Amino acid sequence: MPDRLGELTERLREFVAEREWQQFHDPKNLAMAIASEAGELLAEYRWIPSGESDRWTADPENHRRVALEAADVGISLLLFCDRAGVDLAGAMIEKIEINRQNYPAESSRGRHTRPPSE
Amino acid sequence: MPDRLGELTERLREFVAEREWQQFHDPKNLAMAIASEAGELLAEYRWIPSGESDRWTADPENHRRVALEAADVGISLLLFCDRAGVDLAGAMIEKIEINRQNYPAESSRGRHTRPPSE
Amino acid sequence: MPDRLGELTERLREFVAEREWQQFHDPKNLAMAIASEAGELLAEYRWIPSGESDRWTADPENHRRVALEAADVGISLLLFCDRAGVDLAGAMIEKIEINRQNYPAESSRGRHTRPPSE
Amino acid sequence: MPDRLGELTERLREFVAEREWQQFHDPKNLAMAIASEAGELLAEYRWIPSGESDRWTADPENHRRVALEAADVGISLLLFCDRAGVDLAGAMIEKIEINRQNYPAESSRGRHTRPPSE
Repeated sequence: MPDRLGELTERLREFVAEREWQQFHDPKNLAMAIASEAGELLAEYRWIPSGESDRWTADPENHRRVALEAADVGISLLLFCDRAGVDLAGAMIEKIEINRQNYPAESSRGRHTRPPSE
Repeated sequence: MPDRLGELTERLREFVAEREWQQFHDPKNLAMAIASEAGELLAEYRWIPSGESDRWTADPENHRRVALEAADVGISLLLFCDRAGVDLAGAMIEKIEINRQNYPAESSRGRHTRPPSE
Repeated sequence: MPDRLGELTERLREFVAEREWQQFHDPKNLAMAIASEAGELLAEYRWIPSGESDRWTADPENHRRVALEAADVGISLLLFCDRAGVDLAGAMIEKIEINRQNYPAESSRGRHTRPPSE
Repeated sequence: MPDRLGELTERLREFVAEREWQQFHDPKNLAMAIASEAGELLAEYRWIPSGESDRWTADPENHRRVALEAADVGISLLLFCDRAGVDLAGAMIEKIEINRQNYPAESSRGRHTRPPSE
C-alpha cells in the first residue's frame, strides 16, 4: 500500500505540470505560499475566544471552511518539500525527537515554556 | 502498512499527552502555531533572490535548517487537524479537485492568476 | 514639528544606506520581512488564553519583548512603504473610510463579521 | 502640529468604540490580525520574481491594492499598540539603536547576515 504523503505529492506534481507552474514554484515562492495560506487559516480564528474555539470549529460550516484552509497549508507544504528535496515525514520524526530532548516530559509537564537546560 | 500521516499523528498525541499539553492546544492556538512556524520558514528565504533559492536550498547546512522548519509547520498542522477533527489527506484531495476546476489546465497554462470564469 | 513617520523613515533610510542593504530590500523581500516579524509577535501569544492576554502583556518583561516585536513589524512596514512609494498614513486614512462603509456602525455593533450588503 | 500616529490612533479608537469592538480586541487577537493582514500582503507577491517586484509594484492597479494591504497591517499594528500600551514610535527608535549595535555598519556592509560578535 503506497504512502499517503507520496500519493498526494504525485497528484500535486501532475496538477502543477499540466499547468506549467514549476516556473513559479521555487522554494522562496512556496515558502511565501505556505505563510499566506497559514494567514488565511489564522484569519478564521482571530476573533474567536480561545475557550470557544473547539466548539466553533465543530460547527459544520466552519469545519468545512477550516478543513479546506488547512488543506491549502498542507498542499503548499508538500509542494515546498517536493521542490526543496525535503523528506517531510522523516524531518517530522527527527524534529519530534529533538523536541523530546528540549522539552523533557518531567520538567515540561503542564508548562509550555522550554525548561532551563540542566 | 500503516499510513504515514496516521503514524505521525499517533507519535504527536503521545508526545503531547506525556507533557499534558492538550490544555494549550485548542484550534485557535494551534492555528497561531502553524502561522508562527510558517513565519520562521519564511525568514530563511527573505533575503534570497527567487532565482537563487533552489541553489541556496541545496546547500547542506541550509537544507537541514529548512527541513526542520518545514517539519515544524507539518507538526503544528497535524496537531491542528487532530484537534479540529480534520482528515488532512481527504481535505487535500478535495481541495486539489476544487483547484482543478478553478484553474482549468488549458486557460491556466503558464499563468498564475485565476482565469475569468466562463 | 516634523511628522513622526517621516522622521522614522529618514532614520531607516540612513541605517539601510550605511549598510548598503537597498539591494536586499525589494518589495517582495520586504513583504516577507513584515510577515516573518508578524510571526514572531504571534509566537509570543500562541499559548496565552485570550482572556489573559491583557494581563500577560502588562507584565514588564513580556511588555518590553512584545514592544520590540511590534517595533520590528513597524520597521519592516515603513521600509516596505518607502520602497513601494506608499504613503502609509494616507493609505490608512483611506482604508478606515472604506471600513466605515463596509462595517456600518449600526449593523456592526458588537459583531465582528461583515454585515450583508443591503 | 499633532503627530500623525497619534491622530490615526484617535480615529481608530473612535471607529472601534462606535462598533463596540473593544471586546474582540485583546492583544492576542490583534497579534493574529496583524499576522493575517501581513499574509494578505505576502500573497500579492508570492509569484512575482524578486527582480520584477519593483516594476510590478509601480503598476497603478497593483500599487493601489498593495497600499491598502499595507494599510491593513498598519491599522492592526496601531490597534495592537494602543491596546498593549506600546509607544510604537519610541519602540521603533529603540529597536533601530539595538540593530545599529547588532549590525555594525562596517562589518554588515552588503551582507544581510548578522556578523559574529567580536
